[in-house]
Amino acid sequence: MTNLISGIKCRDELKKNLSKRIKKIKEKLTLTVISVGDDEASKIYIKNKIKECQSVNIECNHLHFENITTNKLVKIIKKLNKDSSVTSILVQLPLPKNIDENIIINTIDYKKDVDGLTDINIAKLYSNKKGIIPCTAKGIIDLLEFSKINIEEKNVTIIGRSNLVGKPLAVSLLNKNATVTLCHSKTKNLKIHTKSADIIIVAVGKPGLINQKMVSKDTIIIDVGINRINGKICGDADKSVYKKCKAVTPVPGGVGPMTVYEVLSNTLECYKLQKDKK
Amino acid sequence: MTNLISGIKCRDELKKNLSKRIKKIKEKLTLTVISVGDDEASKIYIKNKIKECQSVNIECNHLHFENITTNKLVKIIKKLNKDSSVTSILVQLPLPKNIDENIIINTIDYKKDVDGLTDINIAKLYSNKKGIIPCTAKGIIDLLEFSKINIEEKNVTIIGRSNLVGKPLAVSLLNKNATVTLCHSKTKNLKIHTKSADIIIVAVGKPGLINQKMVSKDTIIIDVGINRINGKICGDADKSVYKKCKAVTPVPGGVGPMTVYEVLSNTLECYKLQKDKK
Repeated sequence: MTNLISGIKCRDELKKNLSKRIKKIKEKLTLTVISVGDDEASKIYIKNKIKECQSVNIECNHLHFENITTNKLVKIIKKLNKDSSVTSILVQLPLPKNIDENIIINTIDYKKDVDGLTDINIAKLYSNKKGIIPCTAKGIIDLLEFSKINIEEKNVTIIGRSNLVGKPLAVSLLNKNATVTLCHSKTKNLKIHTKSADIIIVAVGKPGLINQKMVSKDTIIIDVGINRINGKICGDADKSVYKKCKAVTPVPGGVGPMTVYEVLSNTLECYKLQKDKK
Repeated sequence: MTNLISGIKCRDELKKNLSKRIKKIKEKLTLTVISVGDDEASKIYIKNKIKECQSVNIECNHLHFENITTNKLVKIIKKLNKDSSVTSILVQLPLPKNIDENIIINTIDYKKDVDGLTDINIAKLYSNKKGIIPCTAKGIIDLLEFSKINIEEKNVTIIGRSNLVGKPLAVSLLNKNATVTLCHSKTKNLKIHTKSADIIIVAVGKPGLINQKMVSKDTIIIDVGINRINGKICGDADKSVYKKCKAVTPVPGGVGPMTVYEVLSNTLECYKLQKDKK
């Protein structure tokens, strides 16, 4: 019987610990969320993040703009950077097309960059130096470690090379001494790479992409896909692999809860980075 | 019979073309090389770079310091950043231990960063945006393309995860749609990853690391290793693979000349980046 790796259980345990650590801090930790426009999915994500923050006593301020220019948003972020009562800043993506996403992201002080998307944090991750790691990548690492799944010396095949998940995950796992293969839409014969993997991490958004012919019985599958079929949410791994492989993260209830948790955890990391520099 | 991939031939051809493109530019292109201390190997590398620059009409200014503080060197680099007669800047590594290498590198304007080592250039490479790519990684890509070796959709196994070679190479090849596996000292059973590769790139510094049992007859080997045995220079691939695999870069005469060439090529790229911004 396949072992289901519960992101909910892991998140709940880690949250207890995080909450204790936050209580010990005299200052109030605060997260400022910035959103622009009316993306429906974004609204749900933000609501979720605010609720989670409150549950560990992180104050959440939400700045919403129906419409704003790049220049004005830059000025607002620069003010937040200087404001010592602001611990971390999250710019909800995607931004409307009239706004220069790269400029906005890189205006955020890297020590307040809760999503780990600034150039400086990318370079720190790449060079294996202390910085803020993107939430989904960090959530997966934490989930593996919590589940006592060894990463070091393992062959990990990642499918999907996005800047938000695949690439930071590849670097994070490499930093933990895994041997990483990064596959994507141009990979020929994906099966060779999944069959030989100790751990498969799939983050593509294609339901059924991983089927039981592609996995070995000792494989662990981390399913980052979130797809909607007939109103039901499912991942990128076909349910048939659940019977065959060693362990798998369910969708929903696997990686998703971990990603939101890391917003809280990274807010504490931001606080620590700012303290270190003083 | 194995095909030898000559870096010398490739460099000479590319240099002819580069020289023509530089001649068309009205401004004089200049490279400023900064070195500190008395590292013997560095002296030879610098001499080589200066000679190569002159051969394509790039003026080379060498600033050498026996001893200098981080702060003073930062001030010098800031001046060079502002000086419009300086096209590119190269800080010869390693720097003496009393100097903060990270601060020095990141003081260089990314548009003058001929080695592609600043955080901004790392992030640009990672995000597949236009920037300066580290010389050895770019040299290998150019050598493969010049040799008409297809990269797209190929399985490439890189051995060695340094910030100077392995990592930028992995990202560069990924950006060219290769499927990349990054191996290192903690990789178990290296042979699995080399046997299944279309292209093996080895950059470790261990003579004989790749032997004929580890390669297939259709494999192409790019040997970045430079080792000295009994006064002779050799790479990381054992000579026995030369008979077995499809093509290999010799050491010396393979990747080495390409790395130096890219200092010249990147100086032109720096010039273009600076023009773009005006």
